[in-house]
Amino acid sequence: MSTPSAIDFWFDFSSPYGYLMAERIDALAARFGRQVRWHPILLGIIFQATGSRPPADGISSKGKYMLHDFARSARFLGIPYRMPSRFPLPTQNAARAYYWLHGRDCAQARRFAHAVFNAFFVDDRDISAPDTVLEIAAQLGVDREPLAAALQSPEIKARLKDECEQALAAGVFGSPHVIVDGEHFFGADRLPQLERWLESGGF
Amino acid sequence: MSTPSAIDFWFDFSSPYGYLMAERIDALAARFGRQVRWHPILLGIIFQATGSRPPADGISSKGKYMLHDFARSARFLGIPYRMPSRFPLPTQNAARAYYWLHGRDCAQARRFAHAVFNAFFVDDRDISAPDTVLEIAAQLGVDREPLAAALQSPEIKARLKDECEQALAAGVFGSPHVIVDGEHFFGADRLPQLERWLESGGF
Repeated sequence: MSTPSAIDFWFDFSSPYGYLMAERIDALAARFGRQVRWHPILLGIIFQATGSRPPADGISSKGKYMLHDFARSARFLGIPYRMPSRFPLPTQNAARAYYWLHGRDCAQARRFAHAVFNAFFVDDRDISAPDTVLEIAAQLGVDREPLAAALQSPEIKARLKDECEQALAAGVFGSPHVIVDGEHFFGADRLPQLERWLESGGF
Repeated sequence: MSTPSAIDFWFDFSSPYGYLMAERIDALAARFGRQVRWHPILLGIIFQATGSRPPADGISSKGKYMLHDFARSARFLGIPYRMPSRFPLPTQNAARAYYWLHGRDCAQARRFAHAVFNAFFVDDRDISAPDTVLEIAAQLGVDREPLAAALQSPEIKARLKDECEQALAAGVFGSPHVIVDGEHFFGADRLPQLERWLESGGF
């Protein structure tokens, strides 16, 4: 029996539903013997290329609903959540740090990703700041200097750009966006459909 | 013990997720002793007023995904679905007929609403046409002539306009949009959260 293919999980660190998916997808995939490849990307680039838009502006009736739904969806899933006071935030530093870490220790990169989401959506920290990113990594035992240098390195900048281009080429238009065996699932609210898909190999 | 308040269910007859919600909401509400007030509205008016947009254009990566998700979500819920060949369609005739019928026999109006959704999302009929609306109603025993007159009556036109204005005033921005005890649920994918809300009186 061949190993089932990995699941691709595309997200922006500033995406509330991306955070909810991040808190659930590894355990779900593991139940079905699947690995998950995490791909932090920049929604600004995705929205610009696809003409899509962020879900919440906080002012319109839809925007107010979305802010409410972020927190209610977290409660529904049993995940801690506090609406960040600054939202959304640019996430290129967090994403670049992720890819640099991933090249050295992919398990540590995964722990870092969870810690970034937690810093933003539970502790209300400014994850756009390089210092915050470096502090989060330092708490996981990562040396500050080489990571600070990596955040400005052409190679890491190119890696993030390349991931965004790969996302667009794959048809990603938002966060979270999960692709399994060519099947796309957009949004944390597709977790039940993703689960049934993994269970049944399609439905 | 007081009777629990009714649930308000806002939808457009051309909305695939509105159809999925329509197929489930009455049975769900009944389990918790709730009535549902159905309100067909015109999404064109809602989108114009709120600046919101339809989910699917069929061309972009997001649009293609949405068309795929309509059908997959229907399969997930066990509801028959066939993507209409003409989509979306204007639905003022179906909505006007609904309100006219509702003023005479609310149970018949409910059967009519299900039949309109079925005609569009299973039988691929052109529900924008007055003739189709009259035929659907005739199969439920409704006389053609008075309904044909009602579709053009100032009173019924005003009723539909008023329902759209009430929807906007209530904060409705799309379809399906459900309000229970002041709590808003947008989208058929919020059925599990709606169920938990009804079970627990909030979460």
